[in-house]
Amino acid sequence: MKKTNNSAVLQVGERLDDLLIDQMKIIQHDEQFRFSTDAVLLAYFATVKVKAKVADLGTGTGVIAMLMAARGASKVEGFEINPRMADMASRSVAFNELEDIITIKAMDLREIKTKNVAGAFDLVVSNPPYRSIEKGKINPNDDIAIARHEILATLYDVVGAARHLLKFRGRFAMVHLPERLAEIITAMKEMDLEPKRLRMVQGTAEKKPTMVLIEGVFGAKPGMIVDKPLIIYKQDGTYHDEILTYYQK
Amino acid sequence: MKKTNNSAVLQVGERLDDLLIDQMKIIQHDEQFRFSTDAVLLAYFATVKVKAKVADLGTGTGVIAMLMAARGASKVEGFEINPRMADMASRSVAFNELEDIITIKAMDLREIKTKNVAGAFDLVVSNPPYRSIEKGKINPNDDIAIARHEILATLYDVVGAARHLLKFRGRFAMVHLPERLAEIITAMKEMDLEPKRLRMVQGTAEKKPTMVLIEGVFGAKPGMIVDKPLIIYKQDGTYHDEILTYYQK
Repeated sequence: MKKTNNSAVLQVGERLDDLLIDQMKIIQHDEQFRFSTDAVLLAYFATVKVKAKVADLGTGTGVIAMLMAARGASKVEGFEINPRMADMASRSVAFNELEDIITIKAMDLREIKTKNVAGAFDLVVSNPPYRSIEKGKINPNDDIAIARHEILATLYDVVGAARHLLKFRGRFAMVHLPERLAEIITAMKEMDLEPKRLRMVQGTAEKKPTMVLIEGVFGAKPGMIVDKPLIIYKQDGTYHDEILTYYQK
Repeated sequence: MKKTNNSAVLQVGERLDDLLIDQMKIIQHDEQFRFSTDAVLLAYFATVKVKAKVADLGTGTGVIAMLMAARGASKVEGFEINPRMADMASRSVAFNELEDIITIKAMDLREIKTKNVAGAFDLVVSNPPYRSIEKGKINPNDDIAIARHEILATLYDVVGAARHLLKFRGRFAMVHLPERLAEIITAMKEMDLEPKRLRMVQGTAEKKPTMVLIEGVFGAKPGMIVDKPLIIYKQDGTYHDEILTYYQK
């Protein structure tokens, strides 16, 4: 049974949004980074084995960590450098009564290699900052900027932290921009996280992809499956059937 | 004006196929590797600048070399290890009266680095053997096997030869299997042929890709465009409009 007294959990400027999955609610703040569809797509793309131990790098609102629990993970650790976001995520976890499964850690993922035990996770997921600091306007709100731009964590930092946390044969799944695909694949190959699954995300069937979903396996041989594109909208503008299946539980 | 006396150009077992583009004809043999749609898709995907000097690695029937001429290349060299294929390709070139533009060289592309001058081409294209020798049944016909499997040239051999032939800022365009994408990107990055354009080829809008088209630029910065998928058939089973444009000249 979920808690019903919303005012007790919210702080000034915060709101309680409905995740529309498993009746979960999520605390968000207009002046902080808010989760997007990308996070939901990643959560359903990743291979989550029953009772898997999962790490979420840059968990933000905690949405992916909560979706990992909904998909059957037995233990989830969400790492978040912004202490205000980490606090909101922790309170969302508590509100959804998922404290036994999910732990939110307010820490810099660049410190994972020195502070965390290696090889403890079956799966690492990440919806990281997408843009290198040379590209695009940096948001004047520092908290939002660090979630969008590679100011405090580069692609290599994220992939390196994932590799440290994973067991041999463990999986790393990420959502990112198509324009970074060559860099992503190179970084994963260098860390021996062999790309095994790739899926382009498109607004409609004949549009160029706006996102890429990729999953690698630590220590696997080369050879990948490129799946059919994940299409968000049908021609009539309604959600594609596959997207609706995410929200039917 | 094209030659009309077909019997004069054909040898035993050969046939003269219509390319359906620029009224070109192409000599093929049932016991040799025959060109497929992949070659045509690559020819229209590659960035062919006016008067470009183009090399085609593993030219086979010479179809891509001829399409490069049709797209405005001023000089094309087609490299082919199988002397019987090289001879057929040379006769197709002559039949289409393209000898002033296209030269077919019967040689092993692994010798390009030692036998050819570096940096002489604006564009290198290749529709190489797709499968590593560990994967799939090897065709008992040796001539077809070397065109399909990496028996005499690996992905690295092809990318390395391309890099040798290209001018700085020149382009390398290839068609290949999606399952090899991570290896392709890694090989190109290692040779400083930065992947800049990627396009998946799909039978229909919601099917998984069967081919990948990729183009890199020698010495470019990271950052790529993933274009909308190239869709071969419409839902009603007829060719997609884009495919028809290739054949309307």
